[in-house]
Amino acid sequence: MIEAIQALRVRGAPLIGISAAMGLTAAAAEQQPLTLEWLEGAVALLGASRPTAVNLVWALDRMSRVAEAAFESGVGRDVVVEALRSEAQKIWDEDTAMCRAIGEVGSELLSHGATVMTHCNAGALATGGIGTALAPVYVAQEQGKTVEVVSCETRPLRQGARLTGWELSKQGVPVTCVVDGAAGAVMAMGKIDLVITGADRIAANGDSANKIGTYGLAVLANAHGIPFYIAAPRSTIDLSTPSGGDIPIEERSGLELDAAPGAGVFNPAFDVTPASFIKGIITDRGIIEPPYTESIAALFT
Amino acid sequence: MIEAIQALRVRGAPLIGISAAMGLTAAAAEQQPLTLEWLEGAVALLGASRPTAVNLVWALDRMSRVAEAAFESGVGRDVVVEALRSEAQKIWDEDTAMCRAIGEVGSELLSHGATVMTHCNAGALATGGIGTALAPVYVAQEQGKTVEVVSCETRPLRQGARLTGWELSKQGVPVTCVVDGAAGAVMAMGKIDLVITGADRIAANGDSANKIGTYGLAVLANAHGIPFYIAAPRSTIDLSTPSGGDIPIEERSGLELDAAPGAGVFNPAFDVTPASFIKGIITDRGIIEPPYTESIAALFT
Repeated sequence: MIEAIQALRVRGAPLIGISAAMGLTAAAAEQQPLTLEWLEGAVALLGASRPTAVNLVWALDRMSRVAEAAFESGVGRDVVVEALRSEAQKIWDEDTAMCRAIGEVGSELLSHGATVMTHCNAGALATGGIGTALAPVYVAQEQGKTVEVVSCETRPLRQGARLTGWELSKQGVPVTCVVDGAAGAVMAMGKIDLVITGADRIAANGDSANKIGTYGLAVLANAHGIPFYIAAPRSTIDLSTPSGGDIPIEERSGLELDAAPGAGVFNPAFDVTPASFIKGIITDRGIIEPPYTESIAALFT
Repeated sequence: MIEAIQALRVRGAPLIGISAAMGLTAAAAEQQPLTLEWLEGAVALLGASRPTAVNLVWALDRMSRVAEAAFESGVGRDVVVEALRSEAQKIWDEDTAMCRAIGEVGSELLSHGATVMTHCNAGALATGGIGTALAPVYVAQEQGKTVEVVSCETRPLRQGARLTGWELSKQGVPVTCVVDGAAGAVMAMGKIDLVITGADRIAANGDSANKIGTYGLAVLANAHGIPFYIAAPRSTIDLSTPSGGDIPIEERSGLELDAAPGAGVFNPAFDVTPASFIKGIITDRGIIEPPYTESIAALFT
């Protein structure tokens, strides 16, 4: 599972959390003898597999607490494994429900005929349910609205053209892929009503880390008077990260760019969009707005 | 040559003009009998090969005038071909000189240690000389300054990562390639001192068409207080195009994006950067500044 997370064979902040919890359970079921020390070591290894998405450590913290409680109560090995399995399934089920809630809340932003721009993939392929950024689109479609999506390709790994293009067209949602560099031109043509992206970590002040290119989209959206939204479950909000500057940004191999030999490569996987560019954050508990320090704190009380 | 221009085996506005002139000459040398009507037909075909770069029709207009004059004076076929060859070589030589002049003029903007961001390839591989946007970098290097370049990949065809990365590293200029989506993050890190791109057509009011993604870079540069420059020879300025809205924008095959089957693709090859985002245009006759309607007109008087 660590390898799968690092190679991005599972990706998307919510799905990384679910996968880590499920992976831990599967490994524990095969581990002989199963000790709390072994579990803590596995949690640490899984938790270090990617640095930016906070859902990973959030899910693993829940698994750790369940493991500790089970070992403290002195139950047998099979009961420990079952407790882990049950918690992992709960994390998945809760994510499914949070996706649905995000979709219902966010669909209010989408009128019939709206065109949404998105980046990377924050859909069913990134979560345990119908997605985060794409959930409002799916729910709007269920409500009988026609909603179109412009999907930015999202170099270097092209999740927008490969994954978002695939899952939306599979569901009958009209989707048009553009290169990342075309976002500004498409906005200037007046074709975009709003931008919605997912997030990998939202700081306590609303600054949001998401796939590289999101910040540029947010600046462009603001320059064109187009509302820019983040969609994410509460598990993506990290109250212990005060602001965007405190979010660790993963740098990935330059080989992902396939540049000319001799040329250097800088390949950050994420960037940070300051809260001031974000019109609202679509959460499973409603759309929150600035000032985010207050509206985020209120989500957890 | 038409096929080579359409397939982008030669590309870059100045090089397209030179190539069309040379291609016309080579075809004329083989044409039997060689008539003015045949030449006019060949000029029309070559001129329609790509719509956006004005250097193409600019160069072909010069070739047409030479052909007409030669036929009018009643010289023999070999003299006509020689007149065409000579004019094509002049177009090339003039471009070489204009590149050098752009480099000398633009190098004044680059202090020792400066980092320039560029997009696509507007270097030696796009012109008959040392380039347009890259010319100031090459001249600054000759002057003993250390200048670094951040080259945006430039999807879909990746000229920034392939061509700009190649030619700069080949010349010993430190170059770092980034995906187009990383431009905003790199600017926010304070790493960029100025942005210089080429242009495919500059309207009489300064609005400039260039490779898709240029407009987004210009908006981002302005948002970060980073000066944004266009570098181009006078042959790229089209006084008969009043403003950016009058520039035809080529749409290329969606296959260049390799998106998921079922997903649509919108693939404009260029976008237009309004003059208001352009701090200056580095021409072979000096750096011109707003108001461009006046400063451009002055270039041609």
